[in-house]
Amino acid sequence: MIGYNVVGQRIPKLDAAQKAMGRAEYIQDVRLPGMLFGKILYSRHAHAKITAMDISKARALPGVHAVLTGKDIPPRMRMGFYKDNPPLKADKVCCFRDEIAAVAAVSEEVAKKALSLIEVEYEPLPGVFDPEAAMEKNAPLVHEAHKSNVLKLPWKLHYGDVEAAEKDSAFVAEDRFTTTWVTHCCLSTSGAVALFDASDNLTVYSNTQIPSLAQKDFLETLAAMDLKNKRVRVIKPVIGGGFGSKLDTYAYEHIAILLAHKCRKPVKILFDRKEEFEATSTRQPTVIYIRQGCDKEGHLTFRNIRMVLDNGARTSWGATTPSVMMMPITSLYRVPNVRYDAKCVYTNNTYSQAMRGYGNPQATFAIESCMDMLAKKAGIDPVAFRRINQNEPGDVTPQGFKITSCGLGQCIDAVEKELAADQPLGEGEGIGVASLIHVGGGARIYKSDGCGAILKMDDFGKVDIFTGGTDMGQGLDNMIAQIVAEELGLLAEDINVVHSDTDVCPWDVGAHASRSTFVAGNAALGAARRAKQTLLAFGARLFEVAPEDLVMENRTVSVKNDPEKFMPVDKLLRKAHFSPGGTMLMADYFYDPPNENMGKDFRCNLSVTYSFGVHGVRVHVDKETGKVLVKNYVAAHDVGRAINPMLLEGQVYGGVIMGLGYALSEEVMIKEGQIKNPNFRDYKLFTAKDVVPIKAPVIETHDPDGPFGAKGIGEPGCVPTAPAVANAIFQAVGVRIKDLPITPEKVLAAIQEQSKGS
Amino acid sequence: MIGYNVVGQRIPKLDAAQKAMGRAEYIQDVRLPGMLFGKILYSRHAHAKITAMDISKARALPGVHAVLTGKDIPPRMRMGFYKDNPPLKADKVCCFRDEIAAVAAVSEEVAKKALSLIEVEYEPLPGVFDPEAAMEKNAPLVHEAHKSNVLKLPWKLHYGDVEAAEKDSAFVAEDRFTTTWVTHCCLSTSGAVALFDASDNLTVYSNTQIPSLAQKDFLETLAAMDLKNKRVRVIKPVIGGGFGSKLDTYAYEHIAILLAHKCRKPVKILFDRKEEFEATSTRQPTVIYIRQGCDKEGHLTFRNIRMVLDNGARTSWGATTPSVMMMPITSLYRVPNVRYDAKCVYTNNTYSQAMRGYGNPQATFAIESCMDMLAKKAGIDPVAFRRINQNEPGDVTPQGFKITSCGLGQCIDAVEKELAADQPLGEGEGIGVASLIHVGGGARIYKSDGCGAILKMDDFGKVDIFTGGTDMGQGLDNMIAQIVAEELGLLAEDINVVHSDTDVCPWDVGAHASRSTFVAGNAALGAARRAKQTLLAFGARLFEVAPEDLVMENRTVSVKNDPEKFMPVDKLLRKAHFSPGGTMLMADYFYDPPNENMGKDFRCNLSVTYSFGVHGVRVHVDKETGKVLVKNYVAAHDVGRAINPMLLEGQVYGGVIMGLGYALSEEVMIKEGQIKNPNFRDYKLFTAKDVVPIKAPVIETHDPDGPFGAKGIGEPGCVPTAPAVANAIFQAVGVRIKDLPITPEKVLAAIQEQSKGS
Repeated sequence: MIGYNVVGQRIPKLDAAQKAMGRAEYIQDVRLPGMLFGKILYSRHAHAKITAMDISKARALPGVHAVLTGKDIPPRMRMGFYKDNPPLKADKVCCFRDEIAAVAAVSEEVAKKALSLIEVEYEPLPGVFDPEAAMEKNAPLVHEAHKSNVLKLPWKLHYGDVEAAEKDSAFVAEDRFTTTWVTHCCLSTSGAVALFDASDNLTVYSNTQIPSLAQKDFLETLAAMDLKNKRVRVIKPVIGGGFGSKLDTYAYEHIAILLAHKCRKPVKILFDRKEEFEATSTRQPTVIYIRQGCDKEGHLTFRNIRMVLDNGARTSWGATTPSVMMMPITSLYRVPNVRYDAKCVYTNNTYSQAMRGYGNPQATFAIESCMDMLAKKAGIDPVAFRRINQNEPGDVTPQGFKITSCGLGQCIDAVEKELAADQPLGEGEGIGVASLIHVGGGARIYKSDGCGAILKMDDFGKVDIFTGGTDMGQGLDNMIAQIVAEELGLLAEDINVVHSDTDVCPWDVGAHASRSTFVAGNAALGAARRAKQTLLAFGARLFEVAPEDLVMENRTVSVKNDPEKFMPVDKLLRKAHFSPGGTMLMADYFYDPPNENMGKDFRCNLSVTYSFGVHGVRVHVDKETGKVLVKNYVAAHDVGRAINPMLLEGQVYGGVIMGLGYALSEEVMIKEGQIKNPNFRDYKLFTAKDVVPIKAPVIETHDPDGPFGAKGIGEPGCVPTAPAVANAIFQAVGVRIKDLPITPEKVLAAIQEQSKGS
Repeated sequence: MIGYNVVGQRIPKLDAAQKAMGRAEYIQDVRLPGMLFGKILYSRHAHAKITAMDISKARALPGVHAVLTGKDIPPRMRMGFYKDNPPLKADKVCCFRDEIAAVAAVSEEVAKKALSLIEVEYEPLPGVFDPEAAMEKNAPLVHEAHKSNVLKLPWKLHYGDVEAAEKDSAFVAEDRFTTTWVTHCCLSTSGAVALFDASDNLTVYSNTQIPSLAQKDFLETLAAMDLKNKRVRVIKPVIGGGFGSKLDTYAYEHIAILLAHKCRKPVKILFDRKEEFEATSTRQPTVIYIRQGCDKEGHLTFRNIRMVLDNGARTSWGATTPSVMMMPITSLYRVPNVRYDAKCVYTNNTYSQAMRGYGNPQATFAIESCMDMLAKKAGIDPVAFRRINQNEPGDVTPQGFKITSCGLGQCIDAVEKELAADQPLGEGEGIGVASLIHVGGGARIYKSDGCGAILKMDDFGKVDIFTGGTDMGQGLDNMIAQIVAEELGLLAEDINVVHSDTDVCPWDVGAHASRSTFVAGNAALGAARRAKQTLLAFGARLFEVAPEDLVMENRTVSVKNDPEKFMPVDKLLRKAHFSPGGTMLMADYFYDPPNENMGKDFRCNLSVTYSFGVHGVRVHVDKETGKVLVKNYVAAHDVGRAINPMLLEGQVYGGVIMGLGYALSEEVMIKEGQIKNPNFRDYKLFTAKDVVPIKAPVIETHDPDGPFGAKGIGEPGCVPTAPAVANAIFQAVGVRIKDLPITPEKVLAAIQEQSKGS
């Protein structure tokens, strides 16, 4: 095994001190000269016609620069995956979140006052709030033009022969699982500042996870405004939490653009916490029907899953989560025959977006709950049952995923060691286990899954590297800095990562799919390798040796086996610069991973490599109250290699806590389309006081394609948490909760139901 | 001749509208959270010991965060070319401009109040204010440790045999010329903001012309503060005038750094207009003894020049201007035997810096005035005399300058045509002519004369180019954009030039020596060529032709002679991006011109090419008042090629107006070391109402090394203005003024003296 100097070090986040000192600039801190403040008016009904709107009083209010309504939206301006969402709605509202007017004014106060002066008359329509009900024949139509509430999406696959396999199965388990709305709870609320220059080129400050795709979206908005051939610059302030919430562009950004153009001034729209709850997207609620079987030895024979997703009133990327759900469905454990069918259904509820795991937590909740049920039927220990079916390197799954490195077995070992061997079970205690598979080497969901990097070195041995990748708090800056420093024999502090401006940073498809360390890391590594090659060639001429006889380490280039011949890197750089025909070191690299877009039948190798993990949890259930106490938690992940174990653990801890919230307490409560708990008092986010003891064993399988062997690990921490908890509760008290979150009320009701039955 | 689409177009400055709309951000506009304001206390004596200083009252003032004195300056911290200038002076002051204390406070008002509370006791010393007097044996020493007021500088050359040549000369002219202090009068005053991050890395906002060298200076300051191995980032706001004034780092920048470090907060120091006059540098005052001769046919035989420069009390780059004066002395016209000897002498006056022309205007004033005197002696028409001696392509001058392209003769033609053939001379009218040579292809005054460029293209056919070059209002952004657009067949509006941040922009030695269009232009062109090569290779594969069969024009790549085969550049870029193994276009280039550093005898080819110009002026002199009226002015320049004729004319107009101020009205009036006119009422800058009719014929000689044939032309406009005016006055009224500025008082006195004599 190779020893590394910087890769593998527990180096604190490069921007930690700046953040701790209050120096980091969030969207909240962006303030431009002459800036106006925008505010948005939302619908007062879940489903209604707008019969009249009077904005004259708002427009007349001193300090108001512009008032926009749905009538001001150019016809081609539509947002989202399905293009069913104009930034302001003109004639009809389909949910409480629908934006119907916006103002720009000299202050937030004036803007709010102006909103209150807008008079709207509605004609309420009957709404539909349950996706299964919305599929029924005479259900009210959310979008009349669409003729049905079921979206025309192709989420359907069948590999092998599920019917035949079921016939041949020794044991079959099946059930219905449901998950509800949860939301990202980013501590920095959403916001954007838009401004135009004199030539109608646009700059948008936005805490987006997708600067390059946002640039494209905003160019489309400009085109809809008849502003062709313009430039769009996206500047990303420090992001205070992303988790997928910023993987699309939103009405507030497009409205800020429209207002800025109308006012010829910078316009800022910033959400307050209530707005953040009510007007940003959630995780998809699902209804999951699962049926799977195994043979006598416990080998899985088939898996058959049908889902209904509540799409809400508009379509953002949430409607594409079934494409990712396919991954655990077809490829978590060896399962030869698979069927999957998902329907996304319009309702008059809020609508969903990407959220950490992107469908995987919902699918894995059903699969891994059902795995325990099937193991019980087969009379096999749940952990042993998973060992029988575990993925192995070299596997090609029914969907065509090529498993290169796979530490799933080692993860099981680690969890057993850290958890099961720990202590015997007490009264009301139970242990549960659940596994995960996730993309770990990019995920080709767009025409390119690439990322660019540009590197330059100065006369003092310091590096500036411009990455397309987005650090939204997860620590990508460290990954890039540690990878580049390792390759060039420097220290992490020698590397400055520039990552926040499309004018400067190369293209990247965005911070999603746990792809940044792998893809942006490989791009940075590619640029560093090119730089190293140039430097070593120069050093080789200087020392009159071959480049391969040189090493770069400790800020020094030296000749192998000749301790007399060495030169500090900064001196070598100056020699190269201050010579006749002098040059300075610059290099670039564009890394597009060799993964595949999904084909018509969804077969592909979606990711260059896959990450695996196993979570185990010990719970205590209070039979009197139904309250579940997590006593300790082990989350073992095959990460390829830990570039920075401290940040990796941070990702896992954060993921587990987010997963526990999903499992036990979090829920956006929506009644008749209206959110009832849009605040941190009533939305039960796990906070510092709720943190449980977590161990995060790191399994290093040295992935052949990852930068220094690393795979992506951003999302997995929250993927199998809920089924692990559900399985532990079952072991503790014998009740299986199939509806998230697993509140004390549900547990207690199940216990009472059970004791009635017994 | 090749036709160009973008090069040669009169495209307005890319930032013109932003500036007109008040959107450009100058140093005045930089305001950071928590920022403090610094103010500097200056000496009250031209020469004195500081016997006591009490800062306790200042320190106690509420709102004051720090007070620094000379005692706080680390011993190694010395500024300027001669390292004789600590940012704050401790024991002795040598001029009124000497900084002795500084404060940082919550507002400028509090900072000023604090300055007024600092109590200083001085023991005045006798001063010396005339450089020739300062050379005398018993003159007071400005720096005792230096033992003499004459700086130890090597400004001395002798090519050929001047004595022998003089003996052989048919005619000899000689005289003494003097020039005084003038200053840049940038409309945006000087200022800087310094801040440290948590790791003591430094960011400085400064309107500097030398971001890369300033970075180096600030790193040395950090090293003197025992902050080693830190990063320094220099951010350059929009610069409101440079003209050489910002070619060094100054006390205010280093003081801002010291205060920022002490306070752990951003500190801004911004000069008011009085401070700008009193505490920034001037053009060097010179005393010039010239003697030159010619043979009977009018061929120059020798030139012998001795100079004394008033160095003032401290040494900035001003002391190196003799190295540039050598250029006209040895190489303006063919002159085989040359001697030059310059002494820089300490006085208790203010001190000088780079200023447009960098010594060339002073030397050319003496040379070209004396050329007319010699022509008169030889009985040859002054214009004909210049034709006899004009430089030609292929010449190698005594100093070793290799003249590649040279349009000096064509410039004479143009001036004669536009001026002399115009109208007959009226009463009191005269015409004067003077020529210039200047570096036009860089000037190797540092170990590197290079500039880097990085280019990237997006999916929409737009280019971002990061240049080391500095646009300080002269329009470099346009040069870069037009060059890159031309090379890539795009429009100038497709090119975004990024040039303001050392984190992002490659290295460049600075905006001086009229080098930016040539050097930064060649760097940008190099990057564009590489990008084009990649694009054409991709296009060639696509169209199945050879790359050389393709052309890029009008945002389109097309196959020559096959009008069916073409593709818009943006589409081609997307094809390259969205293919398997996709890539995006990035390219870099570092251009270090093949010019030479000066050798021991100052022989070298300082620049890759040289720019030439001839100015002609028609004046009317009022014999009653001595007032000189410029009736019209022609400034013809050999520019190689005009990348943008409009901006080129702007450079020439501005240069001529600056030159006319130098010739006729501008003077920093210094009495006993103290500036008497530190304001725009008493300092007679030419303003809009003083503008005269100017024609600026452009001579294009298509330089083989320049980007699209261009040579540098930033400084020349102000170089030969004063002698052209002096020569015209002589023709008008027969008096020769040898001391700048040529005020009505001097002209009138000379006329009265002349009439006494007659």
